[in-house]
Amino acid sequence: MSELNTLVVWEIIERALREDIGSGDVTTDAICEPDQVGRAVIRTKEPCVVAGVPIAQMVFETLDSQLRFASRVRDGDRLNAGQIIAELDGRLRTILTGERIALNFLQRLSGIATATARYVEAVRDFSVKILDTRKTAPGLRIFDKYAVRVGGGQNHRMGLYDGVLIKTNHIRAAGGIAKAIERARRSAPTTLRIEVEVKNLKELQEALDAGADIIMLDNMSLEEIRQAVKIAHGRALLEASGGVNLENVREIAATGVDFISVGALTHSVKAIDMHLEVLAP
Amino acid sequence: MSELNTLVVWEIIERALREDIGSGDVTTDAICEPDQVGRAVIRTKEPCVVAGVPIAQMVFETLDSQLRFASRVRDGDRLNAGQIIAELDGRLRTILTGERIALNFLQRLSGIATATARYVEAVRDFSVKILDTRKTAPGLRIFDKYAVRVGGGQNHRMGLYDGVLIKTNHIRAAGGIAKAIERARRSAPTTLRIEVEVKNLKELQEALDAGADIIMLDNMSLEEIRQAVKIAHGRALLEASGGVNLENVREIAATGVDFISVGALTHSVKAIDMHLEVLAP
Amino acid sequence: MSELNTLVVWEIIERALREDIGSGDVTTDAICEPDQVGRAVIRTKEPCVVAGVPIAQMVFETLDSQLRFASRVRDGDRLNAGQIIAELDGRLRTILTGERIALNFLQRLSGIATATARYVEAVRDFSVKILDTRKTAPGLRIFDKYAVRVGGGQNHRMGLYDGVLIKTNHIRAAGGIAKAIERARRSAPTTLRIEVEVKNLKELQEALDAGADIIMLDNMSLEEIRQAVKIAHGRALLEASGGVNLENVREIAATGVDFISVGALTHSVKAIDMHLEVLAP
Amino acid sequence: MSELNTLVVWEIIERALREDIGSGDVTTDAICEPDQVGRAVIRTKEPCVVAGVPIAQMVFETLDSQLRFASRVRDGDRLNAGQIIAELDGRLRTILTGERIALNFLQRLSGIATATARYVEAVRDFSVKILDTRKTAPGLRIFDKYAVRVGGGQNHRMGLYDGVLIKTNHIRAAGGIAKAIERARRSAPTTLRIEVEVKNLKELQEALDAGADIIMLDNMSLEEIRQAVKIAHGRALLEASGGVNLENVREIAATGVDFISVGALTHSVKAIDMHLEVLAP
Amino acid sequence: MSELNTLVVWEIIERALREDIGSGDVTTDAICEPDQVGRAVIRTKEPCVVAGVPIAQMVFETLDSQLRFASRVRDGDRLNAGQIIAELDGRLRTILTGERIALNFLQRLSGIATATARYVEAVRDFSVKILDTRKTAPGLRIFDKYAVRVGGGQNHRMGLYDGVLIKTNHIRAAGGIAKAIERARRSAPTTLRIEVEVKNLKELQEALDAGADIIMLDNMSLEEIRQAVKIAHGRALLEASGGVNLENVREIAATGVDFISVGALTHSVKAIDMHLEVLAP
Amino acid sequence: MSELNTLVVWEIIERALREDIGSGDVTTDAICEPDQVGRAVIRTKEPCVVAGVPIAQMVFETLDSQLRFASRVRDGDRLNAGQIIAELDGRLRTILTGERIALNFLQRLSGIATATARYVEAVRDFSVKILDTRKTAPGLRIFDKYAVRVGGGQNHRMGLYDGVLIKTNHIRAAGGIAKAIERARRSAPTTLRIEVEVKNLKELQEALDAGADIIMLDNMSLEEIRQAVKIAHGRALLEASGGVNLENVREIAATGVDFISVGALTHSVKAIDMHLEVLAP
Repeated sequence: MSELNTLVVWEIIERALREDIGSGDVTTDAICEPDQVGRAVIRTKEPCVVAGVPIAQMVFETLDSQLRFASRVRDGDRLNAGQIIAELDGRLRTILTGERIALNFLQRLSGIATATARYVEAVRDFSVKILDTRKTAPGLRIFDKYAVRVGGGQNHRMGLYDGVLIKTNHIRAAGGIAKAIERARRSAPTTLRIEVEVKNLKELQEALDAGADIIMLDNMSLEEIRQAVKIAHGRALLEASGGVNLENVREIAATGVDFISVGALTHSVKAIDMHLEVLAP
Repeated sequence: MSELNTLVVWEIIERALREDIGSGDVTTDAICEPDQVGRAVIRTKEPCVVAGVPIAQMVFETLDSQLRFASRVRDGDRLNAGQIIAELDGRLRTILTGERIALNFLQRLSGIATATARYVEAVRDFSVKILDTRKTAPGLRIFDKYAVRVGGGQNHRMGLYDGVLIKTNHIRAAGGIAKAIERARRSAPTTLRIEVEVKNLKELQEALDAGADIIMLDNMSLEEIRQAVKIAHGRALLEASGGVNLENVREIAATGVDFISVGALTHSVKAIDMHLEVLAP
Repeated sequence: MSELNTLVVWEIIERALREDIGSGDVTTDAICEPDQVGRAVIRTKEPCVVAGVPIAQMVFETLDSQLRFASRVRDGDRLNAGQIIAELDGRLRTILTGERIALNFLQRLSGIATATARYVEAVRDFSVKILDTRKTAPGLRIFDKYAVRVGGGQNHRMGLYDGVLIKTNHIRAAGGIAKAIERARRSAPTTLRIEVEVKNLKELQEALDAGADIIMLDNMSLEEIRQAVKIAHGRALLEASGGVNLENVREIAATGVDFISVGALTHSVKAIDMHLEVLAP
Repeated sequence: MSELNTLVVWEIIERALREDIGSGDVTTDAICEPDQVGRAVIRTKEPCVVAGVPIAQMVFETLDSQLRFASRVRDGDRLNAGQIIAELDGRLRTILTGERIALNFLQRLSGIATATARYVEAVRDFSVKILDTRKTAPGLRIFDKYAVRVGGGQNHRMGLYDGVLIKTNHIRAAGGIAKAIERARRSAPTTLRIEVEVKNLKELQEALDAGADIIMLDNMSLEEIRQAVKIAHGRALLEASGGVNLENVREIAATGVDFISVGALTHSVKAIDMHLEVLAP
Repeated sequence: MSELNTLVVWEIIERALREDIGSGDVTTDAICEPDQVGRAVIRTKEPCVVAGVPIAQMVFETLDSQLRFASRVRDGDRLNAGQIIAELDGRLRTILTGERIALNFLQRLSGIATATARYVEAVRDFSVKILDTRKTAPGLRIFDKYAVRVGGGQNHRMGLYDGVLIKTNHIRAAGGIAKAIERARRSAPTTLRIEVEVKNLKELQEALDAGADIIMLDNMSLEEIRQAVKIAHGRALLEASGGVNLENVREIAATGVDFISVGALTHSVKAIDMHLEVLAP
Repeated sequence: MSELNTLVVWEIIERALREDIGSGDVTTDAICEPDQVGRAVIRTKEPCVVAGVPIAQMVFETLDSQLRFASRVRDGDRLNAGQIIAELDGRLRTILTGERIALNFLQRLSGIATATARYVEAVRDFSVKILDTRKTAPGLRIFDKYAVRVGGGQNHRMGLYDGVLIKTNHIRAAGGIAKAIERARRSAPTTLRIEVEVKNLKELQEALDAGADIIMLDNMSLEEIRQAVKIAHGRALLEASGGVNLENVREIAATGVDFISVGALTHSVKAIDMHLEVLAP
């Protein structure tokens, strides 16, 4: 049981297939005989960190338990342009009907993993962790965040349920940082850390005094971040957030923050170009 | 009943909310009083063609039928940076819990509409139509394709069920273009056109002779496309596909093809930057 | 993977079983031992074109993956009264609990296939195609339309999503046939044909001029249909619809229309009499 | 809350709508403006006992809570040809998109109610009750059986869960009628009657001796049924079953049995011809 | 196919797993290698009548079809403290992720079966049957009632759909016992018995006269129950209900009633203490 | 929007109603007229801390949006025997059909809240928090844990997804406490605390050294717990667990631990006795 082999994952795959197939693949059903067999390969056309291979396999298995799907690579591998990802062997109908959905998953997730790996690579001289956000494609969060891990990143909270993140609006509603933290400590499950978003060094100080576990430095300048690290001095973990890109991520890492979160990893994915090719018999 | 107000749409929204909220928004539930009210605005931070405003509204309505969501723009409007998209008025809990999901939809769909509009603008001197593909985020096709329409594009088939598209692999399985078209004519619902993908002008001729309704010119050079238009001479609709980008789309349009399909519209979306801001009381 | 082996099909079967079994088969559970085994046959009591054999198999497989279901015939075969359709071997509980649902599917679908085959037979001297409609049992459309294909008919659109059919009400809403067709061309997926329903020859002319792909001749007299064929002269496909029955279908076919659609195929099904018999040990 | 206004009913209606609408009503969405309004009537073209009016209403309400649906008749009313069933007022899109599904329900259920009423009428001089069976369209049992009640019939068990019916196969599995009844008494919920199917008068006697509550006389001749009534003499309720039709039902009723069950009521439904007409503005 | 191996059962198990696992078992996924294997035993810490062993097996099978689950006991067995219930062999991740849900089912159901067995034991000198009620944990009725059967009890109706139980409020609504019974006879499925709740001997007489099949003696004293048995004299089955406990159940049984129903069997379950232990390699 | 007014909550309520009503409430539908109205009260028969009032309201609203449900108390209130919880006004059918499910929720949740309140009361002189566990009724965790909060307790993690709890089996799989903690830090979402279960003071020391956030003292003696508090000295939060009951909870609290978790709060619930009474008109 890999961490992807859960009930939720099967459900997302089924939904994707039903969305695409609907009342039937009219082209394939009309043209291919039910028992016509064939072989095919899935290949990447560009270099990438591949992610989603087990998902592509599940796509075909969901359609047809007898299709043989042989992975040639593992999630997290760095592939060259042209490299084979998997070989398929079985009913042609299954291969042709499942092709696009399998590729849609693979191309998106490999896009996320590849982008994440670039950020991770950029900060490899520091102990900082690259984090994702909740800016994922609706319905695909578990996949998008899996791809971030494959690319070497770490996950921030998965949703509103597994992490306390007190933002400016919450602070205003509570009437202050200390009060907000106190309420969260009292009501949220004991297994959760308390994170607070701060806009400036004054708020940082308040959050530290109120015992926040993690403090998110929202859109601060490099200079402010550096001071924040000095002020916090290990009393809380620090997360830099906002406006991060491949150009500035190394400098941010150099400030000594513990985490850098990057929304673009999942909200603006560039799909990796891949294709499935049926082999001549 | 707008074309978005269907049962499927509500289901996708519900799923997105449940994915994010799970067993509860621990932060908001701990900090905001159940009856605390507030006002907020959703704003775009960059210029865009907006799409998904009714969806954002449905997100909040699904959470709380009493929240007042007042749209300030309509899907398809061109917005300036900083422009207000909607104003919200109601329980603070609803606003804070629904914020991220509403934005995730709005940012993705506006990203798609904005990109589509650029392509449409680039070819406005020709009667060609910009089409999407099935390369959408799994589970979000109905939304992704809606955004393409908002941006001025037209939809290619929604899935495998509402269009016959005979690809190279199908042709090989059938033993030729003519046979493949004949089988599709006999078995597929009578309400569907028959489209065939061709790689060269010889295949184009075969497809024309076999009576294809639409012919997809796959990855052809500009010169080949020009000849294809001459050869077809109105006997079938022609669709240029493969390697289309904002640099070459105008030239392709100038060949006289009927349709140009662009996978990147939906497979590599750049989210538009937007945010929700709770107003000081 | 037969065209029936889709995710939707399994769901319909599961639903049917849950509808019937609910909290349990109180009779069988009380009386049969869990491990008591037996053999049974499914037989038709009247001649028919059989349809639904793979579905009956899925019904039993859904209940019990170990039951052996051996088909003796294939969908589309013409059976004599008394002929065996399948033999079952396995747990008696499975056989008795699944019996009624398996038969309900088989009897309905064979009823549809048999009726369709009669129409197809009646027009075999012509190249016309017998079509179904959307007048199917709610929730069973994919099955009802499959049975029509088994009986030798062809499917009209499966639903509102995979075919444009402009009816009188649409024409009125648009303000004329030409306008309605123009709007559909612009907004509907490019992979769909445009069909228009006309009541008389004047409307026929308008539809032809506006470039309809298919024209449905609604409740026209034989004489009108004959003239319509002459007028259209191959510029559009013609579908005769309304008041079709086994008595008049041949005459309608003789007019030269391309399609004849028959609502009764699916809205007024006469089930074929079949039964399941447990064999003495 | 009518007995039809249950959660299951809404689910069946939603499913039917989604089956038909799928990714969208391409015709109506292309042609009608979102806010175009109109009026329509639903009419029967033939005399019938109407059933399903509240269901038709729910179909339109599911699509659009603002559509006004005014019933002109009530389920169970006997209608003349041409009589108006309901008037609709609201968005044209809703009316056109919902039309077919609403009619599919109404036509099928009215077909069942009308047929049932004929049987009930035929036996009105006797105290016998006309019963249905489990031979219903898969997924629609709750509706099919409701229509039987509307037509004046009574329901046999709804499924395998709410009635013990010991058939020949069960008897054989148990090793005799007495043993089968004894096991059912011991294991089935105490709130259920025990019914036994018998093939001849010897089995009838055994069932009586073993204390069956209801005895189904399966495919017996009129003469056998008469004797059965004499033998039973009120010690159990008797149900005649098998080969019942409008020609012989009165004679069967005259034997004095308590129930007559008729499979054809639901397995071979003849839809009542109805239509929806949009009124000129 | 055991009576527990139904579609509904799998659904409840899946739901329980998803409720617990959500977006992932963060501890196990972080710590155990995907292919690390192990062995474990499930043991009871206290004596009990065990129930739910096949359910525990389904929990693990749902997670991982390759886990080997070897039952050492059967539902209904009386276990000593420390006795092994099952041995597990397979991936450690599966064992650790499924542990709590498997135990939650086993501990609750064994608690119900054990309590039921105590009541059954207390009345073993009489022919009375111990019944359950509808006071079960929402969503788990099919399991709770199964455990009652395992403990030697019999089921009262499973829900509102499979038994007519006319309570005081129904009688008042109908305007008397006789009218209420008459309406139920006419409208409810013929396969159901009619049970009436009575508060005193006068109502008992009315119910008898109106032909009730079962009469529930609600909260009557022992003396009243004795008289009721005398009055009914076999004309209807009698069920004692209300305030039953292990102290008074034998005396109630001695009155000669047919059934005694006990709400506490399922509404106030005391879980049996059990645990899962991973064995040292 | 109360924290209970989520999509998941509605789903659980719907499921409970469907489980109970199934194909219909045969008694109520037969006996009450559809438009018969009435009034009723829900009352507790014993003193309790009430929980679940909004859920009872949702039960009736799900059945019938027009029923008026007027709460007379709020969740968390301490009620006397006989006190009215809510008054209902509306269709009698709704009241009678919804009664049992509403009560099943109310009685269970009030049972949990009442038990929790007793523990909280017992330790009120200390700053310790009473926690629940994952030993809840499958499918009802969100409700069971809500009731614990209503009773004054705090939630431990909701499931496997929102808290890292490293148990003995995990430690063994990882090869030591330090390694296990290190893996969890690296892979689990950054928003989660790390909790470790320890059996003795040596393990406690290891967990402290490895930087655990919370340490669960599993089944330790009072004396061991006291030493643990001394050793930890604020470097980690301490949770006492195992064998806690109302007799010993105060002594455990006096040791100075931060949390005491009690499985019996939810695994062995004693329902509070409540009833619904229809008022005479």
